[in-house]
Parts: sequence; C-alpha cells; structure tokens
Amino acid sequence: MQAMNHQWRLKRKPETELSKDNFSWTEEAVAKPAAGEILVRTIYLSIDPVQRYWLSENPTFGPPVTEGQVMPGRIWGVVEASGSPLFNPGDRVAGLGGWQSYCLLSAEEAEAIPDWPGVPLLAHTALFCMQALAAYFGLLEVGRPSPGETVVVSAAAGGVGSLVVQIARIHGCRVVAIAGSAEKCAWLRDELGVDASIDYHSPNFEQDLQNQCPAGIDVFYDNVGGSILDAVLLHINTHARIASGGFISHYNHIGPIPGPVNLHMLTLRQARMEGFSCFEYVPRAQEAFAAIRQWYQEDKITYRAHVVEGLENAPDTLAGIFHGHNIGKGVVQVSAPGAS
Amino acid sequence: MQAMNHQWRLKRKPETELSKDNFSWTEEAVAKPAAGEILVRTIYLSIDPVQRYWLSENPTFGPPVTEGQVMPGRIWGVVEASGSPLFNPGDRVAGLGGWQSYCLLSAEEAEAIPDWPGVPLLAHTALFCMQALAAYFGLLEVGRPSPGETVVVSAAAGGVGSLVVQIARIHGCRVVAIAGSAEKCAWLRDELGVDASIDYHSPNFEQDLQNQCPAGIDVFYDNVGGSILDAVLLHINTHARIASGGFISHYNHIGPIPGPVNLHMLTLRQARMEGFSCFEYVPRAQEAFAAIRQWYQEDKITYRAHVVEGLENAPDTLAGIFHGHNIGKGVVQVSAPGAS
Repeated sequence: MQAMNHQWRLKRKPETELSKDNFSWTEEAVAKPAAGEILVRTIYLSIDPVQRYWLSENPTFGPPVTEGQVMPGRIWGVVEASGSPLFNPGDRVAGLGGWQSYCLLSAEEAEAIPDWPGVPLLAHTALFCMQALAAYFGLLEVGRPSPGETVVVSAAAGGVGSLVVQIARIHGCRVVAIAGSAEKCAWLRDELGVDASIDYHSPNFEQDLQNQCPAGIDVFYDNVGGSILDAVLLHINTHARIASGGFISHYNHIGPIPGPVNLHMLTLRQARMEGFSCFEYVPRAQEAFAAIRQWYQEDKITYRAHVVEGLENAPDTLAGIFHGHNIGKGVVQVSAPGAS
Repeated sequence: MQAMNHQWRLKRKPETELSKDNFSWTEEAVAKPAAGEILVRTIYLSIDPVQRYWLSENPTFGPPVTEGQVMPGRIWGVVEASGSPLFNPGDRVAGLGGWQSYCLLSAEEAEAIPDWPGVPLLAHTALFCMQALAAYFGLLEVGRPSPGETVVVSAAAGGVGSLVVQIARIHGCRVVAIAGSAEKCAWLRDELGVDASIDYHSPNFEQDLQNQCPAGIDVFYDNVGGSILDAVLLHINTHARIASGGFISHYNHIGPIPGPVNLHMLTLRQARMEGFSCFEYVPRAQEAFAAIRQWYQEDKITYRAHVVEGLENAPDTLAGIFHGHNIGKGVVQVSAPGAS
C-alpha cells in the first residue's frame, strides 16, 4: 500500500481568530525525491505565534501564504529517501517542511540535526531552533543587559520568552516575567527561577509591575506589544532598551491598533526600542547553540514543550496559543520519534 | 533711578494651549551679585517648544516649574556687575537666566560666549546652543546617516530641524523636510537646499511623503511624534533609525494620546527608535560647535532667527511656535545687542 502524505493547506485567511475552518485537510501520495532532494518524514512540527502573522494581510516577515498552499512551518524529521549524496535514509534533518506528514526538502537547504548525547530530538525543537536565536541574540545583542539590571519579559512562558528569562538570569539580571496564568507564573518562578512573575490578567497588573521593578526597568524583551508595552514604558529607566521581537497582541486583529500612549517615554528616558528578526542571526546560529548547549549540560537552562500528538491537531494547536494554552515551545508530534 | 528687572512668572500651568494669561508680569529692583555671582543684562532669550513641555504635568526633562517662579529659559547677555574673578563687566555670557530682563547667574555655571570673528551674537543663539547639540548629536550619533541614505526631518523649519537638514545634506544624504507652510517649505528648498520639502497640512501628505522617498526612509529625525511619525513608520527601510528628540504634537494636550498604529514596523524592519536629550551631550559641546563653526565659515550652513523684540512678547512668542509662526530659531530680543 502506498504511503499517503497528509497536509493542511490554507483555505482562506482568517479575519480575526484563526480556526480549523481556515484550512483544508488534503492527502496525496508521498512523492519521490528528485535529484538534489530528500524525502523527510516529519516527526515534530513547530507551532509558533508568528505562523498566525504569516496569514495576515499586513506586511509580513516572509512571503505571504497563498490559498491552496501547504501551511508553512518548521519541521524536524528523518530522511526516508534521498536523491542527494548529502543525506542518507535515517539521517535526522530540520527544515521548512510545512504542515504535512512528509515533505521534500532541498538537500542543500536541509539542516542536519547533530546527534548530541543527552539531547533528545524534542530538545532540538525548543533549544536549538529559530526561537532560540530570537531569545539569545534579541536579549544579548539588542537588549544588552548588564548584571544587576532589571529585565522584564512578556509572553515569558512561551517558546521564546522561557529561554529569554533563563538567559537573563544566567547573566545575573533581576528577571521579571509576565505571563497569562497562575500556572505559568508558578512554572516561571519555581522551575525557571525568575525573581518575580506577574499575571497580566491581574486587575492590579500595572501596580504589580511597578512593585516588582523597584529600581525601574532596564531591559524589556517584548513579544506582545499592546497594553503590556504601554505599562512597561511608564517605568523604563534612563537608557533603557526595548527589544521588540513580536507583537502577538496584534496578530488576531484587523485594522489599525493604537500604539502605546507612553511612547514619548523613549525620548524622556533617552531609551531605545529596536526591532529584530531571528532570520538575521541564522549565520551566527552555532554561536548561540554552543552557549545554550553548554548551559543545558550544566543544568543552567531547561525547556518545556507543549506537545500535541497528531498532525490533524495543528490548526487547533496554533489557535490555542492565542488563548494561552501552551507552556513552553508549541509542537505537534506528527510521527513517532523512534519509529523508522 | 534704580534699574528695574521685569519678569514673567508662572501664574498657572496651561491645560492645553498656552497664553499670556498663564504668566504674571512682575518687576523688582535689579539685584546686586553676591560673591560668586554675576549680574547679567539679557540681550536674547531663547524661545523653544520644550519650554511648553516644562509646564506640563507629565514627567519632564527637568524639574517642574512652580507657580510664582520666573519662567526658565536660556539667555545670552552681557555682564553688568560681577562678584567673581571669572567675569568682568562687559563680558558676554550665556546661561539659564529665565524670562527676565536681568538675572543673577552663578559665575561657575555661566558660559563665556567666545568672540569669534564673523559670528554675531544672534548666530550664537541659533548655531551654538542646546538645539545645535540636539541637531548635531541626535542626527549623527543616534540617527547615524550614511551618504546616499534618505533622511526625513519633521519640524524641519524650526530651530533644531533647520540645522538637522543642513547637517544631513553636508553628509551627502537625500534630505526630505517636513514643515507646516508653503513659505517654510520654500525656504527649506531654496535656501537650505533640501532635496524635497513637504507641507504636512497637505491633504496628500502621506502620498507626498511616499513620492519623495522612492527608496524608502533610512533615518527619521523626529521632533513632533503623532501622525507624522505614523506616516513615516510605514515607509522605513530595514535597519532604519528614528531619532526621537521631541514630540511637539503632544505638548499642548492633556490626557493620553494614542501612539502610532504602525509602531510594529520597527519589528518588521528591524528598525531602531531611540530617544535622546541634548543635555547628555553638553560635555561634548565643543566638538559639535567646532564642526558647525567650520561649516558656517565655509558657507555650508546658515541660520535664521525669528526675532521678536521686547520681553513683554515672550508668552505670545512661545504660544506662536505652536501655531507655526516661527521660521528658524525662536528668540526674544530683550535689550539691544550693542548697548552697554
């Protein structure tokens, strides 16, 4: 019996909240790799807030997704057949395989996953990924924290934020994590060792933020934008730095969203707000991964993955991120890590 | 007959637009300098948009002005009597003398005005002043333009903006000036040599901006904030820099003003928005002044002062800035430059 490739294709772009109805579930025979290609069976599929943004009508980080196209997404998998001397069947690779159970990748563009002892494949999805580049370089090169400074992180329990808080803590900063539930706040405090965690749903959020930042805010790693950014701006110190890696609060909206009323604080505090993209740091990925791997081996950094089994659950998993369902890195397990 | 010192003192802070009614006109006998002080007769009084901001209830650049206090402001004048070996009568000095016809300055804090050939005192108010530090360092160190890049400047016909456009032009940039009248736009184009000038009152302002920046915007020197900032954000290039020196559009308002809806463009374009204050660059003033003096002597830079005679006109002159009355540096001439 011929193996089938299941796929989620874009049916129509979401206007506000994304749902399963925005996609079509299709299947087709698994393709054979042409020369220079490899056929990869997907094990893990990355589910990230930015995927929602790729579906928006606004200017995007990459080319827009068109109707009928397999939803793009990063995958980790195993080579099933190879049309290239670069890879053999059984090799583990990562790449932009999309929301499907099998994919063809260019052998030139596919990335071999190193076989590091003590580092399971799931750890690669959370620690040695694009989000890790965003966390590492966004914090250290854009935010530039110094020991003793106060670093505030929004969406701190997410795939990016949970790395940022740990790297900031390793750098000797006071780390104040903002997240969206008591469970997340407890995890950040008890497992990741942040100095304080604040639930942004709290009616006293602004006061909580001020209380937890008695010396003001030196660095804000912002994944969210919106009202959290506004609250932070009120408490930034002179020469503060705001590293803007995303604006999740906007992704489900259409039409203009007023910006922060406290933006003028940048001028009053001689502060810097700077956007960045993990894609710019891909050439320096090994630098970040080497540091993170060492911290991981030294038990200074950990990860948590929100793993949902079954490709059929990909749309709901992405939608759920915007309802705060995930703690840590969002992943769909498409096939068994161990099976061939 | 004893000389009298006329003063404008704050009566009550303006809620929105400032007017003469916010001040009291007082007079008192001219004081004698104590040891370490000098008595200065004011010749020129600086009138700057930031003075309106000093009267706001918001966080300020400096200590708030209290009711009954002489309105602060920078002056250029001549020493009438000295209680310090640092200055002699007849010396020309600058300092924070306030809105009054005579002031006592600490001799330690007063600044001697150098007697440069070909540089009249009025040129010092426009070219060798705090605004010049804002223009020089804000553009070159915060904006960091490269030759050939497109630099957009708001409030370009003002005291700061008119220097910024000239320094950007000297640095080989394409300079697009935004101002508030046809007369200002003509001056910027015909006298200051900008590549394009745009009236922000134009119903086609956003389209004009796009048309005049065919290669996008690399540097935005922002004195205004508000809707102009929003329009600029839509056209910033990757790694653009926004140097935020002021937010004039906010100064007459009370209550929150929504920020730019396009702020997320910073993330999408990996762009930087950075606030600064001229006060931080005071220790490096001579560096800026030496460069500006050389450009002035080489006829590469010019200035224009909006000179209003009579201290009694100071409140109206400041209010008029917010109606776009000034071209170039706002100055009140309090006494004759030549008289002793």
